[in-house]
Amino acid sequence: MLRLRAPIVLPCDPSCSVLRDGVVDVDPSGRLGYVGPADGAPATEAPVRQLDGVLMPGMVNTHAHSPMTVLRGMGGDLPLMRWLREIIWPAEAKLSPSDMEAGMSLGSVEMLRNGITTSVEQYFQPDHVIRAVLATGGRMILGPAIVDTPGHSWRAQLDEVSARIDVDGRYPDDRIEIGYGPHAAYTLSPEALTTVAEAARARDALLLIHVAESPGEDAAQRKSHGSVPKLLADIGLLGGRVLAAHSVHLSDEDIAIFAEHGVAVAHCPGSNAKLASGIARVPELRAAGVPVGLGTDGPASNDDLDLWEEMRLAALVARLSTMDSAALTAADVLLMATRGGAAAVGRDDIGELAPGRWADVVHVDTASEAFAAGLDVPDEHLLANLVWGANARGVRNVWVGGEQVVADREPTRVERAKVQAQAGAVTSRLRG
Amino acid sequence: MLRLRAPIVLPCDPSCSVLRDGVVDVDPSGRLGYVGPADGAPATEAPVRQLDGVLMPGMVNTHAHSPMTVLRGMGGDLPLMRWLREIIWPAEAKLSPSDMEAGMSLGSVEMLRNGITTSVEQYFQPDHVIRAVLATGGRMILGPAIVDTPGHSWRAQLDEVSARIDVDGRYPDDRIEIGYGPHAAYTLSPEALTTVAEAARARDALLLIHVAESPGEDAAQRKSHGSVPKLLADIGLLGGRVLAAHSVHLSDEDIAIFAEHGVAVAHCPGSNAKLASGIARVPELRAAGVPVGLGTDGPASNDDLDLWEEMRLAALVARLSTMDSAALTAADVLLMATRGGAAAVGRDDIGELAPGRWADVVHVDTASEAFAAGLDVPDEHLLANLVWGANARGVRNVWVGGEQVVADREPTRVERAKVQAQAGAVTSRLRG
Repeated sequence: MLRLRAPIVLPCDPSCSVLRDGVVDVDPSGRLGYVGPADGAPATEAPVRQLDGVLMPGMVNTHAHSPMTVLRGMGGDLPLMRWLREIIWPAEAKLSPSDMEAGMSLGSVEMLRNGITTSVEQYFQPDHVIRAVLATGGRMILGPAIVDTPGHSWRAQLDEVSARIDVDGRYPDDRIEIGYGPHAAYTLSPEALTTVAEAARARDALLLIHVAESPGEDAAQRKSHGSVPKLLADIGLLGGRVLAAHSVHLSDEDIAIFAEHGVAVAHCPGSNAKLASGIARVPELRAAGVPVGLGTDGPASNDDLDLWEEMRLAALVARLSTMDSAALTAADVLLMATRGGAAAVGRDDIGELAPGRWADVVHVDTASEAFAAGLDVPDEHLLANLVWGANARGVRNVWVGGEQVVADREPTRVERAKVQAQAGAVTSRLRG
Repeated sequence: MLRLRAPIVLPCDPSCSVLRDGVVDVDPSGRLGYVGPADGAPATEAPVRQLDGVLMPGMVNTHAHSPMTVLRGMGGDLPLMRWLREIIWPAEAKLSPSDMEAGMSLGSVEMLRNGITTSVEQYFQPDHVIRAVLATGGRMILGPAIVDTPGHSWRAQLDEVSARIDVDGRYPDDRIEIGYGPHAAYTLSPEALTTVAEAARARDALLLIHVAESPGEDAAQRKSHGSVPKLLADIGLLGGRVLAAHSVHLSDEDIAIFAEHGVAVAHCPGSNAKLASGIARVPELRAAGVPVGLGTDGPASNDDLDLWEEMRLAALVARLSTMDSAALTAADVLLMATRGGAAAVGRDDIGELAPGRWADVVHVDTASEAFAAGLDVPDEHLLANLVWGANARGVRNVWVGGEQVVADREPTRVERAKVQAQAGAVTSRLRG
């Protein structure tokens, strides 16, 4: 066993408790044991690692296409549909499986260094993407993309995913979970969507899909069914573990449909702003009981894999869209980035420092200007300094399943310079 | 002389040129000499410092109340007027002059480390605020706050500022420039505003004032004159060097008034979002020819003094408010943070790497994930990676007036831990 001890432990439980002089016990299995005040901790012979600063759960990035790190910086000023058609899709068509692996390795390193221990990925070439994540030591839920491609039907893609899940749907230590990633209602037929949903429900697998991201993307679908959520409900896609990414353009009725069917939302405020897609109605979704997590989206539209920024952006855009300065508080967005993200993807084994969950732990250094007042301030003040004042640069050490994968800001399993060079070579070739 | 040489130099000239293998010459006077390709640089015996990464001008923070670092983390979820009345003003009433000095020292260190070399400050206790900035090595335009306080009339405050300017309005190396900081039209009478404006114009001094920040703040002023810009025009405040902070709630007519009178705007997207004040109409202001710079506002409402974040936020909120993904490009916001900020405050000696301007230079380390593709990418790609992918953590070395004030991320003139501890002690006492 390993015991971590720090002046502040934020378990990210539902009430966003702040533990002073806290202890986080990591079992040899990689799961958490005791989490609480040092005062009440069980006696142990285990080594105790005394840290300064803050311990908190690893963040859960609920929507990403991280292999797209190799496309970062391309076509930054186009709206969604033109950006996809003119820049991204043509570039992706040139990516080999090993290019995608290089991109995912870079994304995985970047996320770990930013305190993200789990990401929900929708991308191609699952073998290569999985290999990259296993190599860096991150955790992933992967929904291999299902699209309608000439020469490789959605049905063949679906069958491949189902076969993969039937053999190896969830790796022994939950490092990798396989789900389904049907792209969107505007790129797949209702028949395809329904069939994918049936397969997902039969396996209790996560289904991740883009919903109502930008105003113009699904005019045909909205015309035929009134809205994309209605279409998805009508064709029987909703139910089971469904994660609707973006979900920017929702009516009150759409929100009620999500709530009724237990659909969760991956909110991506940075991407939605950069591509001028709009502001998701997060306060209303939360009020309706829809679980909402935060996502970075792909690094070609954001452009960094940094949930600290998304926490702040989520609070900022919610305040702008409602003109209510309390629309989302610091505690709200901190929980969205951690336990809320876990809840949104239907996982109760991550996202919170609680006994039995995986020991995915982030250590935040508080020696920066943002914490000049020290840690001995009221809880609300501390949370404000963490969320509003600090940022990813505070992340110093990271554990996944009890294994330290970032030490003093650098990945322990891979050499960052090498990972960057490999991904950089792909970008150079694309640019060439 | 010192010659800095780097693979990329961004002078931040009007066309946002990208120089490859560039040279920046720093004269012994602290001003810039040759800036251009190494190829065409004059022969020199001077030491050449070869750097990796990017050289760019120090950023200009056009609106700040940096001594408020000591109030950071307080009352984060209130709207502007309640936040001022219930939290900030009562707390400020307890600050001694040396408390404000401690707060400014911390703010100054934080800004330099983030690549901000000049800030426009509106605050109290000018002697102490100036001393703090001179100690850290930053550059400042200070408009000592003019408010209507019982026992210390606006006129007495105004006379103090005028006397200060008449003796020492601009320090020999332009490190400090004194201007006027009348708080706002809703806290000062028209007579006070007019009198301050006359004093400022007589001395060609910058006048900084809060304008139309939140929807509810100046109902009386809008009722009597139609809008605050109209009021300011009617009473003769506009003309000369006027910098209107925030300027969120402007009509087309208000924008035309600003354009006509040469009023500049300090745009503070982070603060305006956090306090739910709204989104300034920056694309329209720019289209009308109004100079727009970026500001952090005070660290109690933002909460960090980081213009990298404000660059991104400026682009993001402009895209959201116009639903145009090209509303502000990476180059646009980079220029707003540098030469645009200098132009907004009427200074042509900072904000750009150009011969004769002060050698306020920032060196950005590009060894991070954001630059995995390297620097040998097209200009637009490089600028996108810098603005969207990188952030303040890339800032490694900073010079002000040719003097290195940040070396390898730490201030050279003061000890950061000590500065933080002094400011922290103030916060603890307030919290006590």
